Amino acid sequence: MNKTLSLAIAGLGTVGVGVLELLAAHRDLLSARCGRSIEIVAVSARDRSRDRGVSVDGYKWFDDPVEMAEESGAEIFLELIGGSEGAARDACDAAIAAGAHVVTANKALIAMHGSDIAARAEAANVSLAFEAAVAGGIPVIKALREGLAGNRVTSLHGILNGTCNYILTTMRETGRPFEDVLAEAQTLGYAEADPTFDIDGVDAAHKLAILTSVAFGCKVNFDGIHIEGIRHVAAEDIAYATELGYRIKLLGITERTKTGVLQRVYPAMVPVGAPIAAVEGVYNGVVAEGDFVGTTMFEGRGAGAGPTASAVVADVVDIALGRNTPTFGIPTGSLSQTPSQSLNERVGLYYIRLMVQDTTGVFADIATTLRDANISIESAIQRARTDSGFVPVVLTTHETQEAAIQEALSLLNKLESVVETPRMIRIESI
Amino acid sequence: MNKTLSLAIAGLGTVGVGVLELLAAHRDLLSARCGRSIEIVAVSARDRSRDRGVSVDGYKWFDDPVEMAEESGAEIFLELIGGSEGAARDACDAAIAAGAHVVTANKALIAMHGSDIAARAEAANVSLAFEAAVAGGIPVIKALREGLAGNRVTSLHGILNGTCNYILTTMRETGRPFEDVLAEAQTLGYAEADPTFDIDGVDAAHKLAILTSVAFGCKVNFDGIHIEGIRHVAAEDIAYATELGYRIKLLGITERTKTGVLQRVYPAMVPVGAPIAAVEGVYNGVVAEGDFVGTTMFEGRGAGAGPTASAVVADVVDIALGRNTPTFGIPTGSLSQTPSQSLNERVGLYYIRLMVQDTTGVFADIATTLRDANISIESAIQRARTDSGFVPVVLTTHETQEAAIQEALSLLNKLESVVETPRMIRIESI
Repeated sequence: MNKTLSLAIAGLGTVGVGVLELLAAHRDLLSARCGRSIEIVAVSARDRSRDRGVSVDGYKWFDDPVEMAEESGAEIFLELIGGSEGAARDACDAAIAAGAHVVTANKALIAMHGSDIAARAEAANVSLAFEAAVAGGIPVIKALREGLAGNRVTSLHGILNGTCNYILTTMRETGRPFEDVLAEAQTLGYAEADPTFDIDGVDAAHKLAILTSVAFGCKVNFDGIHIEGIRHVAAEDIAYATELGYRIKLLGITERTKTGVLQRVYPAMVPVGAPIAAVEGVYNGVVAEGDFVGTTMFEGRGAGAGPTASAVVADVVDIALGRNTPTFGIPTGSLSQTPSQSLNERVGLYYIRLMVQDTTGVFADIATTLRDANISIESAIQRARTDSGFVPVVLTTHETQEAAIQEALSLLNKLESVVETPRMIRIESI
Repeated sequence: MNKTLSLAIAGLGTVGVGVLELLAAHRDLLSARCGRSIEIVAVSARDRSRDRGVSVDGYKWFDDPVEMAEESGAEIFLELIGGSEGAARDACDAAIAAGAHVVTANKALIAMHGSDIAARAEAANVSLAFEAAVAGGIPVIKALREGLAGNRVTSLHGILNGTCNYILTTMRETGRPFEDVLAEAQTLGYAEADPTFDIDGVDAAHKLAILTSVAFGCKVNFDGIHIEGIRHVAAEDIAYATELGYRIKLLGITERTKTGVLQRVYPAMVPVGAPIAAVEGVYNGVVAEGDFVGTTMFEGRGAGAGPTASAVVADVVDIALGRNTPTFGIPTGSLSQTPSQSLNERVGLYYIRLMVQDTTGVFADIATTLRDANISIESAIQRARTDSGFVPVVLTTHETQEAAIQEALSLLNKLESVVETPRMIRIESI
């Protein structure tokens, strides 16, 4: 165990450079923690000449990460390229085939192919580690897989995308509409030029798929996740949420059901006193319920060079110390093929916002429609008439089933007095 | 690695019984996670005949835990007796001498003798694990030692005693005085019959000493901690804190200074928006600042059979998988003898509450005293006269040094117009 630990780093974007900086800053500290020194033996990126703010002259350079995986002879291969297909995937496969441990920050790759890659790593007797793929610097994979190893996890929920949480937090604090705040987030670098993956919930779903596998011991099943993003969350919804004692958060949620797991990502209203409601701005947070430990929460920065590098290096230290763990907590052959339930199985509370004509009998029409769909109203807010002759009506329901709500929304949309598509946000009593 | 993992359990109180229950409930799950089955080969407690709600008939019984440590031949010795001396300490020493790994929930033992026991375990090439000693079920030892291994931790603070947090939370919610709420907490089982260790801050300090060692890589130094408990926190202080935008929490805090670390436990005012302020009731929370990861927070239940058993079993799973780690993150020989700074070095904000005679010139006397001690007043609250002819005066200071405040408090106490011992609470801008 006293020889030098050799690393090959593929991908020198924000995260790759962050890792170089961390390894340089903490050379001695890491030697003490690993019991041996760490040496970078090779690096790879698309453009060697790009100015990255750090020198890469001292390392053997590869233009092709797959070639590096095959030839570098490094003990650990760091895959920091990104993307679920192409170079990232091929390089991980090649590294495992060459007998290297793989550390990756790539949530899309693990969400789409994690079970397969883990099986290959297991067969080759090497580690596949991905702490950095979920919730940035928060050691939540380690917490779920090792820290809560004495528990059967019954449910988890998390704020897994800092961009969306920043947008929703800013909308609440300023009262401004989604488009405005998104544009500002792009200017500030909190949102990408093409923000689709973030705001449509795909990024959060990648992370949820990974968390679900680790926490519930089932194969990664990204396709089983119901996904809705935050595009349709209006400033009005956020104001009503505050009035009703809620915060709106883009949540990834998984809970055990009688026959499987129910995984979903959508904007939800959570009580203002819930632990997850206090996670604001670019922060991420994950709450897990274990049958012995009860409720635990893990919070921190979900993205950025420093936090992500912190998670990557934690995986490196684990491997340096020979601290091996089955990738998803149990051997891949034992991971269950737990069926993913349809969201139609959800039972819970709902918020509905309608814009209606301000005429006699409108409320009766709405109430009748809901009654016919077997939905019981918990509270209603109706504001004074606007100049337009239309008024907003906001309802919250008692516990009801998703399928019933979907039917009711469709019927409400057909009412002549309902002049805009009804908006619905699920309420999570967590 | 496929042979059965054998355990000997010393101590069958709340925690010991919780561990028995967890092991029974999750037999198959733990076999999958450990790669081998777990078998309890021996147990020890003072009274064999006591009804514990679970049967201990199937296990070899020892009246003496030291004898069990010497003779059971178990691979892991679970020390769940408690106390820093006597049977607990002797049994751990004996177990290590016999070549067993030791898992303990004993914060007093690790706080007082952790460095020594760790050195012995290291020499014997066995693990010493104590996740359950700090913050109950929250895997905070693992998070600091492994999850943040890529960081230099610059500071940490935590709510480490659920009894105190329950009392302070309830005082705020109900406006009731300390003695009242303590009595209720005793009735509810949230406080011990003799609550001294909890409410005087000793229990929190035990845990802080351990966290400091793991996070800062120094020898455990309980004696270096400045400790104040919550006995003197009055209902008025809590009401003023709320008015000023703060919560009062019993915090354990360690920060790096230029020449060492400054460790302390005391009731502090924290901004109502700080992450730690949201940790309420019997919950514990730990916030760590790492130079790469930024701020991370870990929250959960800090005590009780289930959470503590969860932490104990997490350590067992680590050992079962051969996941070894230097006890405090680096080899004991490399732990620094970092000097503990005196609290006089603290620089920060302060809250002062005085009860004064309502006569002309009193405020001038107070202001002059503070000016002479070089203390600058940030805000002052003076209420209308009471029937008694005395009025409370509440002050907050700008940044100042602890030594100056102590001098000022002593001078204020000597003023004729100040009719009660001045109360001071430190404000932590975290």
